[in-house]
Amino acid sequence: MDPASPASRPGEFELIARHLRPLAAGRAGALGLADDAALIEVPPGRQLVVTADALVAGVHFLPEDPPDLVARKMLRVNLSDLAAMAAAPLAYFMTCCLPATIDDEWFAAFAEGLAEDQKEFRIALMGGDITRTPGPLTLSVTALGTVAQGRELRRSTARPGDLIAVSGTVGDGALGLAVLLGRITRDAGSEALVRRYRLPQPRLQLAQRLAGIATACMDISDGLAGDLAHICEASGLAAEVEAAKVPLSEAARAILAREPRWRTVVLAGGDDYELLFTVPPDRLGEIADEPVSVIGRMTAGSGVRVLDEGGRQLELGAGGYRHF
Amino acid sequence: MDPASPASRPGEFELIARHLRPLAAGRAGALGLADDAALIEVPPGRQLVVTADALVAGVHFLPEDPPDLVARKMLRVNLSDLAAMAAAPLAYFMTCCLPATIDDEWFAAFAEGLAEDQKEFRIALMGGDITRTPGPLTLSVTALGTVAQGRELRRSTARPGDLIAVSGTVGDGALGLAVLLGRITRDAGSEALVRRYRLPQPRLQLAQRLAGIATACMDISDGLAGDLAHICEASGLAAEVEAAKVPLSEAARAILAREPRWRTVVLAGGDDYELLFTVPPDRLGEIADEPVSVIGRMTAGSGVRVLDEGGRQLELGAGGYRHF
Repeated sequence: MDPASPASRPGEFELIARHLRPLAAGRAGALGLADDAALIEVPPGRQLVVTADALVAGVHFLPEDPPDLVARKMLRVNLSDLAAMAAAPLAYFMTCCLPATIDDEWFAAFAEGLAEDQKEFRIALMGGDITRTPGPLTLSVTALGTVAQGRELRRSTARPGDLIAVSGTVGDGALGLAVLLGRITRDAGSEALVRRYRLPQPRLQLAQRLAGIATACMDISDGLAGDLAHICEASGLAAEVEAAKVPLSEAARAILAREPRWRTVVLAGGDDYELLFTVPPDRLGEIADEPVSVIGRMTAGSGVRVLDEGGRQLELGAGGYRHF
Repeated sequence: MDPASPASRPGEFELIARHLRPLAAGRAGALGLADDAALIEVPPGRQLVVTADALVAGVHFLPEDPPDLVARKMLRVNLSDLAAMAAAPLAYFMTCCLPATIDDEWFAAFAEGLAEDQKEFRIALMGGDITRTPGPLTLSVTALGTVAQGRELRRSTARPGDLIAVSGTVGDGALGLAVLLGRITRDAGSEALVRRYRLPQPRLQLAQRLAGIATACMDISDGLAGDLAHICEASGLAAEVEAAKVPLSEAARAILAREPRWRTVVLAGGDDYELLFTVPPDRLGEIADEPVSVIGRMTAGSGVRVLDEGGRQLELGAGGYRHF
């Protein structure tokens, strides 16, 4: 862990020693975050799975978001990418570019959030960098996991006739953001949506069940419709989804009953971090005890068609999703 | 590779497809930068070595620096960290936070720089993220390498009586920056210093020779004096350096002859990316054919003492180094 410019910016060494070093405790290969790099053993027979994401304040999270939740969402978004490949989490590396507004108190709360999720997901910080920036708070995480050889789930391996399924409920993340931004009135039900937006649940255990059963898989970060288009493109296939089968939370159903115009956000909005996967019809029974819903089917062709109750194709816009 | 907010910012998908995907060609596990994560095989008997660094325009490089050199220095700084552990490079992951001023032409030149150094150092981009930022250009790289079990070089394993040695010449990087900033007059010799600052040479091959011979090692990024203090602290020892033995380039010698006040910058300035290592006196002969210079000795105690020709201790300030 190499903080830049220690003389002029004494804070960084202290931030590492005080708040980050404890996050590497118990991992001998982290070398106390005090060497040039970390050492990691990859168990024999397993492949390394690696994903990296950057988060910018004002783009991916709100500058006034609670720091522990920023930390936990950052980790969970990356863990969700590992889950999408059926990988088990191993470690993460983090670079933090801190504006002068980030003080010790903020960083302490941020590190507490990391500590909490490290415990929950059995992952540890093993290295990185802290530096100052004249710009907004910018975080980058590289998460490492492992998966047994040949057991990984990809986007490109769906087959015609496969069912399309999702875990949990869809749309809560995007609706939660709309609540936070004041576009949906806050009420008793809306708090659950905000929680979903701020603290997604990476589907790590479900992913382990899906390995060997699902034919293709990814996590929903940019919206159901847009992300399904990625599976279609990667697999050279088309997808047909019945909107009525898309699983909704109680809170989301209440909003749609009141204001149907939010349906587009549910189907095309992001930040769900559920798993979107394809499965041969005859294998579905093997995961009948899991919270998964079948929403459509893969076919020959290209593109995603989302149909309403009357079989009419819904127009969801250009696809993709603005986080803000 | 998950570009954020594809609908509102169409540029990111295009930047990945046009400029980054070619950098992952030939690595099947990169999955065309089109999946949730990448797959990497770590050869049996080898440990993974991982390092991460963030670079911010205006902090770690000048916004007007040539984009291909920004790219190559970024890679080389990380490769230098791998060299410091005696690791062989394997792959890297990169997140790019791009301000609106970064256009396709800039990014194309940046990617060309990456391509050039990928060839030179046999490394490939295997994943990452592109997003927009309202702040300065911010890059984060996580570099992965491997080293045979037990062959890694650490900072904490120097022993009393070990000689202290450095590769190449020291101080050129910091003097090159002073030239770029107009603090040293440009002349025929100064261009070599600027090149050293902009394009450091990671000592990957030398590091392979040092494994099994050196007792401790790190790379000089924050300055000889400050970085040697890290080895002392990690190893629980003191270091004594003879300033006259510190190897200088011809250009650096010319500047010191003219203006002796630059000596402090040479001894405490950063950006050299040479290897600083300790070696038992009776093993030195094994690397006699390498460009290494003995500059001092490890002793019991703590702290770094740098002595001038008369044996007087030089005052180098608080230690550490301001990149700008």
